[in-house]
Amino acid sequence: MSGRGKKIPVIGGGSAGGFPSAHTAKRFYRDAKVSIIEKEEKTLVPCGIPYIFGTLSSIDEDLFKVDYEKYGIELMAGEKVDEIKRGEKKVRTEKGREIGYDKLVLATGSRSIMPPIENSDLENVFIIEKDYEHTKRVLDGLRGKKKIVLVGGGFVGVELGDELRKREYDVTVVEVLPHCLQLVFDDEFCELVENKLREIGVKLQTGRKIERMLGKKKVEGVELDDGTKMDADAVIITVGTKKNVELAKEAGLKVDDTFGVKVDEYQRTSDEDIFAVGDCAYKFSFFTKKPSSVMLASVASMEARIAGANLFKPVRKNIGVIGTCSTAIRDTAFGVAGLTEKAAKEEGIRYIVGNATIPDKHPPAMPGMTRIKMKFLFEEEEGEIIGAQLCGSHIVGELANMVTLAIENRMTIDEVATFPAATHPCITAPPAFYHLTQAAEDARMKIK
Amino acid sequence: MSGRGKKIPVIGGGSAGGFPSAHTAKRFYRDAKVSIIEKEEKTLVPCGIPYIFGTLSSIDEDLFKVDYEKYGIELMAGEKVDEIKRGEKKVRTEKGREIGYDKLVLATGSRSIMPPIENSDLENVFIIEKDYEHTKRVLDGLRGKKKIVLVGGGFVGVELGDELRKREYDVTVVEVLPHCLQLVFDDEFCELVENKLREIGVKLQTGRKIERMLGKKKVEGVELDDGTKMDADAVIITVGTKKNVELAKEAGLKVDDTFGVKVDEYQRTSDEDIFAVGDCAYKFSFFTKKPSSVMLASVASMEARIAGANLFKPVRKNIGVIGTCSTAIRDTAFGVAGLTEKAAKEEGIRYIVGNATIPDKHPPAMPGMTRIKMKFLFEEEEGEIIGAQLCGSHIVGELANMVTLAIENRMTIDEVATFPAATHPCITAPPAFYHLTQAAEDARMKIK
Repeated sequence: MSGRGKKIPVIGGGSAGGFPSAHTAKRFYRDAKVSIIEKEEKTLVPCGIPYIFGTLSSIDEDLFKVDYEKYGIELMAGEKVDEIKRGEKKVRTEKGREIGYDKLVLATGSRSIMPPIENSDLENVFIIEKDYEHTKRVLDGLRGKKKIVLVGGGFVGVELGDELRKREYDVTVVEVLPHCLQLVFDDEFCELVENKLREIGVKLQTGRKIERMLGKKKVEGVELDDGTKMDADAVIITVGTKKNVELAKEAGLKVDDTFGVKVDEYQRTSDEDIFAVGDCAYKFSFFTKKPSSVMLASVASMEARIAGANLFKPVRKNIGVIGTCSTAIRDTAFGVAGLTEKAAKEEGIRYIVGNATIPDKHPPAMPGMTRIKMKFLFEEEEGEIIGAQLCGSHIVGELANMVTLAIENRMTIDEVATFPAATHPCITAPPAFYHLTQAAEDARMKIK
Repeated sequence: MSGRGKKIPVIGGGSAGGFPSAHTAKRFYRDAKVSIIEKEEKTLVPCGIPYIFGTLSSIDEDLFKVDYEKYGIELMAGEKVDEIKRGEKKVRTEKGREIGYDKLVLATGSRSIMPPIENSDLENVFIIEKDYEHTKRVLDGLRGKKKIVLVGGGFVGVELGDELRKREYDVTVVEVLPHCLQLVFDDEFCELVENKLREIGVKLQTGRKIERMLGKKKVEGVELDDGTKMDADAVIITVGTKKNVELAKEAGLKVDDTFGVKVDEYQRTSDEDIFAVGDCAYKFSFFTKKPSSVMLASVASMEARIAGANLFKPVRKNIGVIGTCSTAIRDTAFGVAGLTEKAAKEEGIRYIVGNATIPDKHPPAMPGMTRIKMKFLFEEEEGEIIGAQLCGSHIVGELANMVTLAIENRMTIDEVATFPAATHPCITAPPAFYHLTQAAEDARMKIK
């Protein structure tokens, strides 16, 4: 169908969920009126926010800039939807505007919340929000400061640490778990991350909790749970996220308090005319089919391309969360696809590990050659690949994506081991020692 | 089985076929006596040879260096096998040495041949051979020269052109077909290659044949088929390859004159105790099952890992040649996986094309961002992905490999379009505009 005469508004547009939903809807239903209702006037690229604090020369370089007209999408910026009137098939914005819909997509995302820490209302204690004006305030607030404490060693904390060092701030990351990125990688990869952070001068306090902020009006320091006191001119808190499900809840859609707006594998909510994608939407694991609390741009974007296509007829199905992500500290990238050992153990999945450390160019004398460390997990019984972790040069990002493809297709050890990877001296590992094949062969030898 | 008491020699070891065959054999049959019989004393990394002429600081940096002992493989270097005595299950070398086998692997490869061009016996007319001493002679022969004509605009010609320019030679590539890399890419990608070559100062004479070499004792120039004469201090010929199948033929194995030593999908020759892999071995297309004349390290390496595992029991199967390869000219890489439009047309395969040009970092303001151009082919009926061509930064190498994985798993347009690629500002495209998904969506819109 062409979608002629149909109205398809998408709530939320500056994310990996909203825009691709609208884009896909317009691709599939080219005569429909597709619009994005976005509460912000200016929208930031969410993953780019840490880079505003170092690499990028201004906050405006991180604006999500799309030629909406070119894609045939109407953008209503600065309009916050405060009610979905399902009976009338309309949404209403705070400004009182009413917008009718035939099919509605919720891409309301998630938001950062300030965790309950004593004195966190002091000046120069910040959280990171996906919000232009707020981010500008944080950026301004750091001006002239020296010592910064980052609370949380997840992706945002690690990336902010790297970026703030580029501007020569004195940076300490405080992480309550034993390691940074502990929820993402197995310990030996966390340690590689931490080594790299230390190498660029980021101080780490892992296994430590912030007890309270110190200071009177402005923050002057933090106190840790072991009594350690550290000076700080500013504190940035990168822990605590909440799914934006209030709108859906108030409209009477089924919402799971932990996992978000209930959707089926076609991204349909409990109302067949309303779809939900991204952080706000319920997800399930590719491996176990259990609900998943992962919030990733990769998953949001996949769900968007499913929802956008399915609006008037289900054609695409969600395969569940494989859970691939990557980050970089300077020239070193880190990637993970699928399950870690930790995750596999938690799920009671028996696995075989294959390791390999492989040059990213060949012969190894090629200038700029660095080695990539890989760890692969295969399910023991069927030999299917279920996960990988990687550390090395920037091609790690796409290697992690390759593994995701292999996982999605449930490739076995022997299939991965005989993968005919193209290789070239300047840009890849050698044919005789290619990453995927070598890690698979290493695992293969452990089959009894 | 452990392979105890079994002898497994591999003939040919400095290639993408020989070493991985031995390595895999040793992995699968750890108590077997695995050896490599290699005719050269010093073996070069074949794909690295062009880089000896520019990037690498000496020929020795391109030596294939492996700690054979660590892998439990015995290396017999400088031993050329001149007979396989199948009755006695022995091979004999030129030096008269006899080596028994239980299972034998032929990885005899291919060699360059001088095409029949008038006066090609003049001094300073060279071919490129996978041979240390020969390559050294070419390298020495170019010393002090200025003008070099490269005959052939395939991978080796293009890469040599790039490398020789790094040492400031005056370089002209003469290619008989209308474009460089014409047999590998569709025309618009060939043109990107040619633009890049011109940009770095390589002169091109495409659609032109060398009529004869000019000069008396030493080469002084070349004459083209249109009568054009060009000065040259040296000529390097990079066309003409022959499979090394003589040994197999003399031993009475079935050999196809065009496509090499006949093997089944387990890499077994017509003698069940002899396996063949790599350039010397018969291959078939993944797509059409027809014989394939492709000679690629990626394919050799895959076949090696199949043969090595299958020696005493077939466990791995050859899926056929997908045909992925990549190259780079300075910072720009070019990759192809599967079928081009040209190839699909020749085979009468109906297809849909999807195009996308996508940043390799995001937001686009990230320093060093370049755009990657992709072209995808999907088979029209089932919507399965059958090919891709890419041009852009060095991650193109792994993107081509990702496409190979997608092809191998016969993924459909909708599966590729909803692929949950992990993305990161420093190292990948944005989630809303990822290479694979966008090229797939573009194609998706062309389905009637």
